[in-house]
Amino acid sequence: MEKIRVALDAMGGDLAPQAPVAGAVAAVKENSGVKVFLLGNEAAVKDELSRLGYTGDAIEVVPCTETIEMAEPPVAAISKKKDSSIVRGMNMVRHGEADCFVSAGSTGAILVGGQVIVGRVKGVQRPPLGSLIPTEKGFSLLIDCGANMDARPQWLLQFAEMGSIYYENFMGVKKPRVAILNVGAEEEKGNALVKETFPLLKASENINFVGSVEARDITSGGADIIVCDAFSGNMILKMYEGTAATFLRVIKKSLMSSLKTKIGALLIQKSLKSSLKAFDAKKYGGAPLLGLKGLVVKTHGSAGEVEIKNSILQCHQFYALNINEQIRSCMEAEAEFMKKLRQEQK
Amino acid sequence: MEKIRVALDAMGGDLAPQAPVAGAVAAVKENSGVKVFLLGNEAAVKDELSRLGYTGDAIEVVPCTETIEMAEPPVAAISKKKDSSIVRGMNMVRHGEADCFVSAGSTGAILVGGQVIVGRVKGVQRPPLGSLIPTEKGFSLLIDCGANMDARPQWLLQFAEMGSIYYENFMGVKKPRVAILNVGAEEEKGNALVKETFPLLKASENINFVGSVEARDITSGGADIIVCDAFSGNMILKMYEGTAATFLRVIKKSLMSSLKTKIGALLIQKSLKSSLKAFDAKKYGGAPLLGLKGLVVKTHGSAGEVEIKNSILQCHQFYALNINEQIRSCMEAEAEFMKKLRQEQK
Repeated sequence: MEKIRVALDAMGGDLAPQAPVAGAVAAVKENSGVKVFLLGNEAAVKDELSRLGYTGDAIEVVPCTETIEMAEPPVAAISKKKDSSIVRGMNMVRHGEADCFVSAGSTGAILVGGQVIVGRVKGVQRPPLGSLIPTEKGFSLLIDCGANMDARPQWLLQFAEMGSIYYENFMGVKKPRVAILNVGAEEEKGNALVKETFPLLKASENINFVGSVEARDITSGGADIIVCDAFSGNMILKMYEGTAATFLRVIKKSLMSSLKTKIGALLIQKSLKSSLKAFDAKKYGGAPLLGLKGLVVKTHGSAGEVEIKNSILQCHQFYALNINEQIRSCMEAEAEFMKKLRQEQK
Repeated sequence: MEKIRVALDAMGGDLAPQAPVAGAVAAVKENSGVKVFLLGNEAAVKDELSRLGYTGDAIEVVPCTETIEMAEPPVAAISKKKDSSIVRGMNMVRHGEADCFVSAGSTGAILVGGQVIVGRVKGVQRPPLGSLIPTEKGFSLLIDCGANMDARPQWLLQFAEMGSIYYENFMGVKKPRVAILNVGAEEEKGNALVKETFPLLKASENINFVGSVEARDITSGGADIIVCDAFSGNMILKMYEGTAATFLRVIKKSLMSSLKTKIGALLIQKSLKSSLKAFDAKKYGGAPLLGLKGLVVKTHGSAGEVEIKNSILQCHQFYALNINEQIRSCMEAEAEFMKKLRQEQK
């Protein structure tokens, strides 16, 4: 297999360019099947590389003169800033000069660029962002967690199908359990979107649909793949983050409240830390934008070296597993299925 | 002031009739301004009362021969089971024989009954369920948390207005901070519903609108009143519950993993318990269905004696504070505001 070529946004995220450059160096050291193009301010990126003492040829600097800021309106930014790291990286994927693009920058710009520059696999209506979230049983895929705020039933069906392929290959779980995010277990529950989507998921032969999953059952591992619109996905992701942060703050404060509790804290510290480590979301890198002709991965704005490194290695795995080819043939089957369904409804 | 008359569903919830009867007895003992009508199976309710040794006249049993089950389709149940505790209780409020109705039974039946039997305050388009959720700073009102799965912008405006009145009076906080649940802080973020609602909230003179609140900032107390559709509200409520349960399970397991951690656990136990007690949602009783001509309160299906008692006392406070009169005049002002807004748009 040839090297997987990853175009990496060296200017994206709170910790750029240090974290992306360090992540790139760590990734090519860990996996010799990876080549990284570092896109960004030439001087800044080269400074970081020499600071880290990297001199190999698995990393190449691609100078860019512009940067898309987090708060910029995405459509305008993508169409105007042709020499930004995001637009340049996406264009490399489009023209076959790179296989993947990874960025911790503006989500909006990445979503727009992915669709407009990289382009969708034939049949894919909207690419969703899929995020692996830690649970008591391992990891579940929350899809869509950021791309399509107002979704349609058929989009959700495709999210379920693409998510299934990704999860099955990436996590090595046969026939992963797909569930729709809902307010109750019964089929008649939900908002209009869920009620219309439910029968589509139930009828699809491409997935192992197990029904509804309530938000309450997500962290205990109630489903492998949780299908939802991006507004709801954001609620799940951010509520998870906020609640965890609150509980850790409250517990920490409580443990520091007296000499007695401080001694207790010393005794439990190590065990507690290792238990909570299972809930570290950084393990699998970023969230792929599925259904594109190449691969685009969005990592957290706060992503550090490890998360960036894992996102790069994730790209390698994505190609090694032929996930895009599988999405392509699934979309063909899905088109047949929808055609049949429409004929039946006539 | 005359006694507040509360019709209590003695058959609703997982712990009925024990918990409702015990909650009623506790409530009338704690507040002599309350009278409770216990609606349900006569023999079962009287058995419980005599088991508790209650012989006073602040509780009256209203025999009902039917019960609405949790899984029953709500509309059919409300129209057919005329002698159920829910339909009887709602009718008592409608006919002025009771001021409030409290139930831990079927949410669907309570929502339908509230609208169809008790009826809405003039001008109210849809009554929302408002739930007080614990945060690091106290309690926030999540509204709508269960009634309207697919909402419209003007409904959300009314949720914000009614929620403000409820929170300001009930929690004693002047000009509480109202925020719309959103995926980011910027005004252009959100799904279609949020984008259309935002300018309405911003223009309303009846509330102290502070903009968007992200799900991540809810548990730390980012807003006093969080306005959303009921689907999103359910995600927040259930994700809160699920994440908290997961973390407590993981911590407990970690504390029991060795002799050393067990000793540590003994030292921190008391402090930790008292810190976590601040996150007990039972303190304020159930969730009121706001905007009805009377008051309808839905408590958790698993509500025990204390939660039922608090829900009954909550009814007393609701009337003592004249919340419904304030909602009535706010709705009049709101109708004027919408009229003006429509004229301006022409």
